[in-house]
Parts: sequence; structure tokens; C-alpha cells
Amino acid sequence: MPKVGIIMGSDSDLKVMSKAAVMLEELGIEYEMTIISAHREPDELIEWTRGAESRGIKVMIAGAGMAAALPGMCAALFALPVIGVPLSGKNLDGMDAVFSIMQMPPGVPVATVAIDGAKNAAILAAKILAASDEELLKKLKAYTEEQKEAVKAKAAKLDSIGYEAYLASK
Amino acid sequence: MPKVGIIMGSDSDLKVMSKAAVMLEELGIEYEMTIISAHREPDELIEWTRGAESRGIKVMIAGAGMAAALPGMCAALFALPVIGVPLSGKNLDGMDAVFSIMQMPPGVPVATVAIDGAKNAAILAAKILAASDEELLKKLKAYTEEQKEAVKAKAAKLDSIGYEAYLASK
Amino acid sequence: MPKVGIIMGSDSDLKVMSKAAVMLEELGIEYEMTIISAHREPDELIEWTRGAESRGIKVMIAGAGMAAALPGMCAALFALPVIGVPLSGKNLDGMDAVFSIMQMPPGVPVATVAIDGAKNAAILAAKILAASDEELLKKLKAYTEEQKEAVKAKAAKLDSIGYEAYLASK
Amino acid sequence: MPKVGIIMGSDSDLKVMSKAAVMLEELGIEYEMTIISAHREPDELIEWTRGAESRGIKVMIAGAGMAAALPGMCAALFALPVIGVPLSGKNLDGMDAVFSIMQMPPGVPVATVAIDGAKNAAILAAKILAASDEELLKKLKAYTEEQKEAVKAKAAKLDSIGYEAYLASK
Amino acid sequence: MPKVGIIMGSDSDLKVMSKAAVMLEELGIEYEMTIISAHREPDELIEWTRGAESRGIKVMIAGAGMAAALPGMCAALFALPVIGVPLSGKNLDGMDAVFSIMQMPPGVPVATVAIDGAKNAAILAAKILAASDEELLKKLKAYTEEQKEAVKAKAAKLDSIGYEAYLASK
Amino acid sequence: MPKVGIIMGSDSDLKVMSKAAVMLEELGIEYEMTIISAHREPDELIEWTRGAESRGIKVMIAGAGMAAALPGMCAALFALPVIGVPLSGKNLDGMDAVFSIMQMPPGVPVATVAIDGAKNAAILAAKILAASDEELLKKLKAYTEEQKEAVKAKAAKLDSIGYEAYLASK
Amino acid sequence: MPKVGIIMGSDSDLKVMSKAAVMLEELGIEYEMTIISAHREPDELIEWTRGAESRGIKVMIAGAGMAAALPGMCAALFALPVIGVPLSGKNLDGMDAVFSIMQMPPGVPVATVAIDGAKNAAILAAKILAASDEELLKKLKAYTEEQKEAVKAKAAKLDSIGYEAYLASK
Amino acid sequence: MPKVGIIMGSDSDLKVMSKAAVMLEELGIEYEMTIISAHREPDELIEWTRGAESRGIKVMIAGAGMAAALPGMCAALFALPVIGVPLSGKNLDGMDAVFSIMQMPPGVPVATVAIDGAKNAAILAAKILAASDEELLKKLKAYTEEQKEAVKAKAAKLDSIGYEAYLASK
Repeated sequence: MPKVGIIMGSDSDLKVMSKAAVMLEELGIEYEMTIISAHREPDELIEWTRGAESRGIKVMIAGAGMAAALPGMCAALFALPVIGVPLSGKNLDGMDAVFSIMQMPPGVPVATVAIDGAKNAAILAAKILAASDEELLKKLKAYTEEQKEAVKAKAAKLDSIGYEAYLASK
Repeated sequence: MPKVGIIMGSDSDLKVMSKAAVMLEELGIEYEMTIISAHREPDELIEWTRGAESRGIKVMIAGAGMAAALPGMCAALFALPVIGVPLSGKNLDGMDAVFSIMQMPPGVPVATVAIDGAKNAAILAAKILAASDEELLKKLKAYTEEQKEAVKAKAAKLDSIGYEAYLASK
Repeated sequence: MPKVGIIMGSDSDLKVMSKAAVMLEELGIEYEMTIISAHREPDELIEWTRGAESRGIKVMIAGAGMAAALPGMCAALFALPVIGVPLSGKNLDGMDAVFSIMQMPPGVPVATVAIDGAKNAAILAAKILAASDEELLKKLKAYTEEQKEAVKAKAAKLDSIGYEAYLASK
Repeated sequence: MPKVGIIMGSDSDLKVMSKAAVMLEELGIEYEMTIISAHREPDELIEWTRGAESRGIKVMIAGAGMAAALPGMCAALFALPVIGVPLSGKNLDGMDAVFSIMQMPPGVPVATVAIDGAKNAAILAAKILAASDEELLKKLKAYTEEQKEAVKAKAAKLDSIGYEAYLASK
Repeated sequence: MPKVGIIMGSDSDLKVMSKAAVMLEELGIEYEMTIISAHREPDELIEWTRGAESRGIKVMIAGAGMAAALPGMCAALFALPVIGVPLSGKNLDGMDAVFSIMQMPPGVPVATVAIDGAKNAAILAAKILAASDEELLKKLKAYTEEQKEAVKAKAAKLDSIGYEAYLASK
Repeated sequence: MPKVGIIMGSDSDLKVMSKAAVMLEELGIEYEMTIISAHREPDELIEWTRGAESRGIKVMIAGAGMAAALPGMCAALFALPVIGVPLSGKNLDGMDAVFSIMQMPPGVPVATVAIDGAKNAAILAAKILAASDEELLKKLKAYTEEQKEAVKAKAAKLDSIGYEAYLASK
Repeated sequence: MPKVGIIMGSDSDLKVMSKAAVMLEELGIEYEMTIISAHREPDELIEWTRGAESRGIKVMIAGAGMAAALPGMCAALFALPVIGVPLSGKNLDGMDAVFSIMQMPPGVPVATVAIDGAKNAAILAAKILAASDEELLKKLKAYTEEQKEAVKAKAAKLDSIGYEAYLASK
Repeated sequence: MPKVGIIMGSDSDLKVMSKAAVMLEELGIEYEMTIISAHREPDELIEWTRGAESRGIKVMIAGAGMAAALPGMCAALFALPVIGVPLSGKNLDGMDAVFSIMQMPPGVPVATVAIDGAKNAAILAAKILAASDEELLKKLKAYTEEQKEAVKAKAAKLDSIGYEAYLASK
């Protein structure tokens, strides 16, 4: 049974939003993923979002660009946490989506992550699930440890070969 | 029967949005006005907006601040024109609302007016109705003429009394 | 007889603005299209815009970039609705045009759509005409229905083949 | 045992951040609240944040203004969800804090809410806890229902007394 | 015969724009001043601006706020220099006017000064006239000298009484 | 004897700034052009700028990017008009230069043109010289006329061959 | 003999800039303070700045608003570190000054601190001097310790009396 | 023994940050350089930064992008000057990093240089060291002289071959 729902407003969002799916898979978290446009399919959005709780969804990840109403409408229709991913597009570097997602009125929060931050949305979803899942919490701590080791290895490489060789090797 | 529907997301929007009502009254256009929060009352929004056409509404004016999903959701649910009024709030001078309202995806336009531009929203609604209403078009032209005369009178006053007296008289 | 007038300030705007023409054609709406620079041809602008009503124009679509005075001047000279399309250019992502078009003073509204949103301008023009044209309203509803079905098909494809195959197929 | 930790960088943040405490109390959620400056007390921050898990904290709410490093450092030191509240100050309307909190690198998400959105941070924290707490989920749904009824009452009042009386009564 | 024309879009601009008049008077430069709205009085604007050259106007100062089309339209209609003064208003700190005035297309420049910089507009106008008026150039140099002496006197006062007494004396 | 001085802060500005030279040549206006960095060559800047009046310079065009102090320092050192050209660079789309050039304090104006608007700077310089040069004024009017005809020709071409052929021919 | 020079462009900057003086006094660092406008007194600026090294100045603190050329010109004329303080004014929240001060070209850095951050400029100056002054370094460490204790005391007070009493006591 | 520590948050910052190393080498200043992520390696950051003083480090250069907590945390942990380099990334042109680095609270300054200004960070570090190192001060003055000569040579070349040949030769 899926625990995370990933929703995006257009298939042009899939390249970025699929990074959330990849990350959830890496952490062994089941998810479902779909494309529903808040502005073109309000009924479908309501049906999918209202039904999410009964499908087992505990957290939702909603990505959208421009006048990104999707994450906020999900938050209006789903009682559990909604994570919003503002997507950059042709203009404005994603600031239109940031404001549309982050500036929610009192009572209906959306947990906004960085512009194009789909991977972080997945990690935040995992952290939310981990609040009641010791096993997952361990996995997250291991993942954090790996990240740390990866940076340490880079620092060691830089220290060992110098910046010129490092840049040449990239 | 109302021809224009005025909708806003919160009663804190009423002070600005009531200027649209005042302007419509001045032009003799019937309207209905309500408060529905897109994020708190999605069902009420759908019912009110989907029913608008059958209530005679030809144009909708939707005002909202911050992550202003209301105008876009109205445009998703109402087949005729929706005018969006971005409202300024405590922070960001209304730019959050501008982006949330103006940056609509292809297929679902919102006719965005100036920040806090509720009066202009009413005039735009009147212009839309005037496209098939000769009488209203005449009224609009007369209103435009009055506006012109008002500025002319100010210029004449300035010319006659000078800037010091003018500023003192304000 | 044309019902919509499309006007732009420079032929460098044509690539984006022609999308409005394509959309109007798709909806079976007659239009005329021209290039007039507000800053280089004020007399031509006045003549074309003042004459528009008698040529049958019910709605105007005006696209411009940078210090985009064109839409506002059209609104000053044409009593029926003017839709403004802010165009992005080399710098500023179109924000200069947004402010020049959207921030109109009381009395002279311009219906501003998204940056480079020429297609939406055409749909908004159609919605305005549809306020008194049942046939066109039906076409618009059908178009909206098609849009919805298109997104549904994409969601079904994603559900059926998964994100990796979907991305590979794009 | 507290389930939510509220942390802020300065006592000048308390006026806004206390709204999170009020909301948590309203929902019957235990919390602890403290003031630790990331830039003045790095050791205290590490101690408090690293110890949070063992004190029972499941979610952290971190509010800060300007170069708001606090929420991100909490996220670096605490394995469970961190909610960031960007606070507005004398200049920049809180955009400095938004960027400092929201734009986290891959691996270390902060769930960013609206500028000065401390109340929403508390509701988001409750939603996170509700993912494994049926009782709290019911409370949240009831709260959402109350919010809806409150807006409905306002719409009824507006409908009944008109905008002039409504504005006069505020 | 006036040498400078001062024009503004609204009498709400007069408080700032009158500073240009004060400065011109101080420099002994004749001017005429009027209020014409580009968006409400296009014909009046054309008449006034096209007639300016024959009235002896050598430089024009045009101040406007929001979607400030006035300076650019003056530049389209007047062959000699036009100085634009972007005016701040309720929102956006005058950035809407800056973009509307400064971002002119090739061929039609507007000499933009600081936000609310009416005094500097007058000095710039004087500098333009001084390019062919030795007497005025001398006056400008004397004015510059006075400015320098004024700052020097302040520095001397600060040096003599210290910052506490200085601040107390302001 | 040169009448216009063109100065820029770096030879990386030459590609844009040379458009000012091209335009001045087209209008038959003599100029001198140099590269002086305000931040690297303060003495050279003072010498060149203070000597400009005696070399016959009536107007100065100063182009710079980033923290663009050059135009303002020229205005501090040269009693006649200084035109500033804000140049875009790798980041910020030239907004850093706009603020550094346009926001001059009272007493020391810089006539700011559009971002990268070197051609317009030359036309503005010509307009300034034309305030006392009937011959040049005629040339400017003829240039404006040519511009108008050029746009008219494009409109006629669009009208004659349609947008598809027009776009294909570009 | 003074070790730090404080310079500002106008006496309207004194209220903020005097905080740098207060902080330097607190740390026992001698300074001189003056008002010189880069745009009105270029010769005075050059004299004061070029002479600073021989007067014993090791670090300069330069504060300015709007098109803030002062810090950059100081950096052009003084071989040792220059700290820039961007000052907020009537419009733009100090962003004009930030860009004018921070975006220096390669070769001529200005150490930019926060908007209106005069106190921090003094602390940064002290840190610079402390790089070769063990005594001062100790004082700075003690100051940092005091700051930490001050926040700890606030946290203890909040813990002891609760947020309501705390807010009431402010 | 190194005098300057260069630290960056990710090896994707190395291309820009290595310019600081190149410049320090050119000035003959010893440095150490490493990669430590504030958000992934808080313990490593504390260890490296707290140990810096005893390793001989007198100045630190910290570069980071997005929510750039690194420079501020270094300033919290290191008593001597910290120079921050805001790095541009995929979105926002580095403005997220500018605000995260520059807007430090009272007591903990970071000396912020231009976006991607790693070379200037090195020169600023050298200026700081030069406050107590006559030899280095001489080198810096010679470097400044070379810079000046380089621009002079470009001006001479432009004067000699004209802009067309100059542009062709680049």
C-alpha cells in the first residue's frame, strides 16, 4: 500500500518530479505517482486527493510551476501533510511558483522545499513517515551518514590531488 | 438577475473589493458578492462557481492575496471571463498574489488587473459586458469622458492658482 | 468581419503573438493582426485603435515587451476590453513588461495574462465574446474538455509505462 | 513529554513565534519552546537539537529572520522533520529569510511555510504527528471544519447586511 | 518664454513633481507645468506635447507612477530630450514606474532619474540647457559648489561637536 | 572637435557601447571614446572627465556594469549632462547597474537609459545637442520618420503574406 | 592615533552609522569619523582617503545609501580593507545600496555587511585589527561570550515565566 | 603555515572558488583549502573552523550557494574575519546566497563580496593581512598599479585601432 502520493500538474514537470520517486525507491518507501492539473481537472483533483487517505497515503508531494495552485488545493483537500515543490520554468526562475505555494493562508499550510527540490521533498516525506517508523528513521540516519562520507571523500581527494587536477577530473 | 459575480477569499479583502461593487453600482450593473476561501471551502467554491452561469453571471471578479488560488480556480470552474485582483498584504506588496493570479497555464486565463485594482476590475467587467450591450458601452464612454474632464479641471486649477496654492488646498 | 484585433509593437514579437492567431483560428474566430509601435507610430496607433470599433472589433489583444506602453494606450483609445500580453526579452524575464501593462491607473484597465501568454490571451478573448455567443461558449467548453482528456491520457500513460519509459519517450 | 520543539533565534521573534505555541495548545499538543541563536550559540544549538529526539521531540519548528541559518542547522542536526518560519524584519519583507530557509541543498530539507507563518507551522507540525495519531487527525479535521464554518458565517453576514454595514462593523 | 515643460499624470504627483519647479525657479529657468493623463487624455497629451517645441520648450520633465506611459509617449511626440521621473506609490516602491519609463525601445530614449527624483530632473534639464548657455552653466557650477560647501559644513560640525550632540541637534 | 564623450569601465563593455558610436556616426556627430575604470583609475577618470569641457564635450555617455560607479562619478566631475548605460552581465540582468546608476542623490543626476541601451544613449545625446542645433534636430526628425516607415513596412508585409510566411522569412 | 576611519555620504546617514562609533568605543578602538559625499566632493574624498594610511587608518568603514559609490571609491583609493554598509532609505529597502556596494569588479573588493549593519561593520573592523592584535582578539572573544550569555539569559527567562509573561514584560 | 583558509560547501563550488586560490598564490600567500558542508557535516565544520586559529589561519574565505549557511557558521565559530562568497547556481542568480550570507545579525559579521567574486575574496583577505604586513601591502599596491596599466593599455589600443578592429581582435 502506497504511503506517499506524488502529484504534478503537467507531464513537463515529470523530469524534475521523478527525482522524488527515485529517492523514495532508494529509501524503500512505496508511493503512487500521477499527473493532475488543478486548473484543468478540478474534479479529478478532488477525487484523487480526497481518496488519498483511504488509499493509505500519509504524505503528499505536489509539484507545480507558474501560478502553482496544485499544492495548496491538495492541502485544502487532504488532512495530512502536503509538501510543495516549486518548479522553475522559462521565466522568473520559479519565483512565481514559490509565492503561489509558500504563501498559504492561516490554517492550510504547505511544506515548501527549494525550487526544483523534488529530491528533498522525498526526503522530507521520509522524515515525516519516520516520526512513527523506527526502521525508516535508521535508514534516514544511514543515508545522512553516507552523504557526509561522500563530502569527506571529496575533501580528501581535493587535499590529495589539488584543485587543478580535481577540476580536470570532473 | 446579477451579471457580475464578485468573490473574495476573506473578509479582510472586503475593504478593497467593495470598490468593485461601488463602481458596478455607479454603472448600473447588477452583481452578487460573496466570500469563499478556495483553501478552506473547496466544495462551496465549486458549487458557487459552477452555478454562476445558470444564475446569469457573465463575468466574475475574484480578489485574493498571498498564494491567491481563488481566481485561477474560478477560471477552472467557470467558462466565461474571470478577472483577478491581486491584493497586497503585510509583506511583499502583493507580488505573491500577482504571480499566483497572472501566471496561469495555457488554457485557463485569468484577466489580471493592478495590485489592489478592484475598481478597474469592475470597469473591465463592464467593458466585457459592453461588447454586446450598446447602452452600457455608451455609459462607459461617458464615464471615460468624465474622467478626462476631471483631469482637465485639475490642470486648469493648477494653471490658475499655481502649485503652492494647489498643494495647500489638498 | 473581424471580432478580435491583435496588435504588437515589433515584428520581433510575432513569434509569440502568432500563437494568439493560431488559437483564434482553432476556435473559428475572425481576427485582424498588425504591427504598430506606440512609441514610433503614435498617429497610426490612434487611427488603428480608434477605428477598431467601427471595423467590428469587440476585443483587442496587445502584446509588447520592455516599457510596454502599447496595451495601456490601446485601452485609452478603445472602449471595449483590451488584453495585454507581457513579452519577455533579453533581460528581466518580462517583469518590465508586466509592470508596464498590469499596473494601470483607475479607469483604464488592461486584462493582463501570463508572461508570453499569447495563447491564453486568445482564449480570454474567446471567453469575452462567448459572454454573448452561445455557440462559441459551447466550443470553449469542448476545448476545455479536450484539454482535460489530454492530461488524463498522459496520467494513464504514466501509470501504464512508468516514469522512466515516459521520460524516454518524450 | 513534548512532541514538538519550538526554537527561535532571538527574543524579538517571540511575538510571531508564540502563535505556534498558542495553536499547539489549542490542538492539545505538548511542546517545548526555547531561544537559541545559531550564530551566537553553536554549541547550545547542537546540544539542544541533538538531544531533541531523546526528549521525545518528533517535529521541530524553527523561526528566524535575515540570514536565517537556524532552521537549516536544525535540519542538519535532527533526523526528523524541521519546519522553518521565515520572519520579516525591518527590511526586505522577509525575503532574506525565505531564501536562507527554503533553498536547502539536496539531502537536508526544511519544510518552509509562509513569511511570519508561525500558526501554519504549528498546524503543519500537527499534520505530521497526525500521520500516526488518529485522535489528532480527528481534531485537525474538526479544526478545518470550524474554519470553514467561520468563513461561511462571514459570507452570510455580508449577504445579510451588505458591504457598507459589514465594513462599518469591523 | 518657457524652456522646460513639466508634465505629470495626476495631481497626486504634484507634491513630488513641484520640487522640479522649485529647483528650476532657483536656477532662474522659465517653465510651464501641467497635468495630463496619458491614459485618460491621449488627445490632450498629443496636442500639448506636439505643440511644445513651438512654445519654446527645449526639455520636458515627465513624472508618473505605476504603468507610467507618460514619459515614453512624450518622447514619442517631442523631438527634444524628455526626462522621466518614476514615482513611488502605495506598492512596489516605484519599481513599476522605473521599468515603464527606463526600458524604452531603441530610437525613443527617456532620460530616467532616481525614484521620486524630481529635483534631479530639474538639474538635469538645466544641464541640458547649459550645453548652449554659458550663463546657466556658471549658475550650475555655483550651485554644485554650494552643495559641496554645505556638506563640508556638516562635516566640520560633526568634527566639532561629536555625533551625540549632532544627532541631538537634528 | 568632439561633442560627445563615450566612456566605459572595461573593454568587455565595448561590444554594447560601440553601438552608441555607430549611432553617433550615423547622425554625423563627432565623439571621442575611451575606456577608464572608476575603481582602478580614479586619477585618470578625474583628468579625462574634468578636461572634457575644454575639449569641447557637451554630453557624456558612460556605460558600466555591476557596481557601476562610473556614470555617477562622471556626473560629479562634469558640469554638463551625463547619460548612464546600465550593462547586463553574468548575473542579475543588469539590475545591479541600474540601481548604481539611476539612484543618484539630489544635485548630481545621471540620465539613465534602458539596460544595454547604448544606441538610445546616443540618440538622447543627439537630442540634447539638438536643443541648440536646428540642423541636428532636422536629422533626428528624419531618423524618427525612417523608423516609423520601417515599422509600417513590416506591418504591410505581415498583412500581405501572413504570419506563417513572415516568420519563415525571418 | 585612529585605526579605523568611518565615512558616510550624508549627515542623514549619521543615525545608523554612529552605531559603528559606539561599538568601536565599546571595544576601545580609536577612530575618526567624517561626512564626505563621493558625488559632491570628489576632491575631498580623494584627499581624505589617500591620506588615511598616513594618518594610521588600518580599516575603513564606509556607509552610503541609494547609488552608493562611496565605499567602492574608498576601496579604489585606499590599499587596506574597506567595509561597506548599505543604508536603507525611503524606497527599495536598501537593495540599491547593496548592489552598488557589493557588486565590485575584480581587483577592488568591498567587504559588504548587512543592510543598515553599522554595528557589524565595527565588529568586522575589530576582527580585522585583531588579526595582528592579541589583546583585541581577547576582547572580541569576551564580547562574543557576553552575547551568548545574553541570549542564554533570555532563554532562561522564557523558560521560567512563559511566553505570555515574557511578551508582556517587553 | 597557512594564513588563509578557503572553505566551500560542495565540490561544485570549486570551479569558482579555486580563483581565490589562484589569486592568493599570485600574491604569495599560503592557504589551505577544503570542502565541508555546513548542513551535512556540522561536526567536521566545527572541528575545522575552531581549529583554524591554532593552525595559523588569520582570515577565512567561505563560498556557498543557495541557503548558504556556511559563511555565517564559520563566523560564529572563528574569531577572526570571515569573507563570504555568494555563489550563483541554476536559479535566482545567486540572490539566495547573497541574502543568506550578507544579512547576518548584530555581533557576527560576514564580509560579503560580489556574486561569484572569489578572486575579490582573495584580494580582500590579502588587504586584511596587509594591515599588519608592509611587504604584502607593497605587493597589493603593485598589483593595483598593474591593473591600472592593463586598462590604460586597452584604452590606448582602442584609441589606436578603433572599436571595429578592437572588437574583431577579441
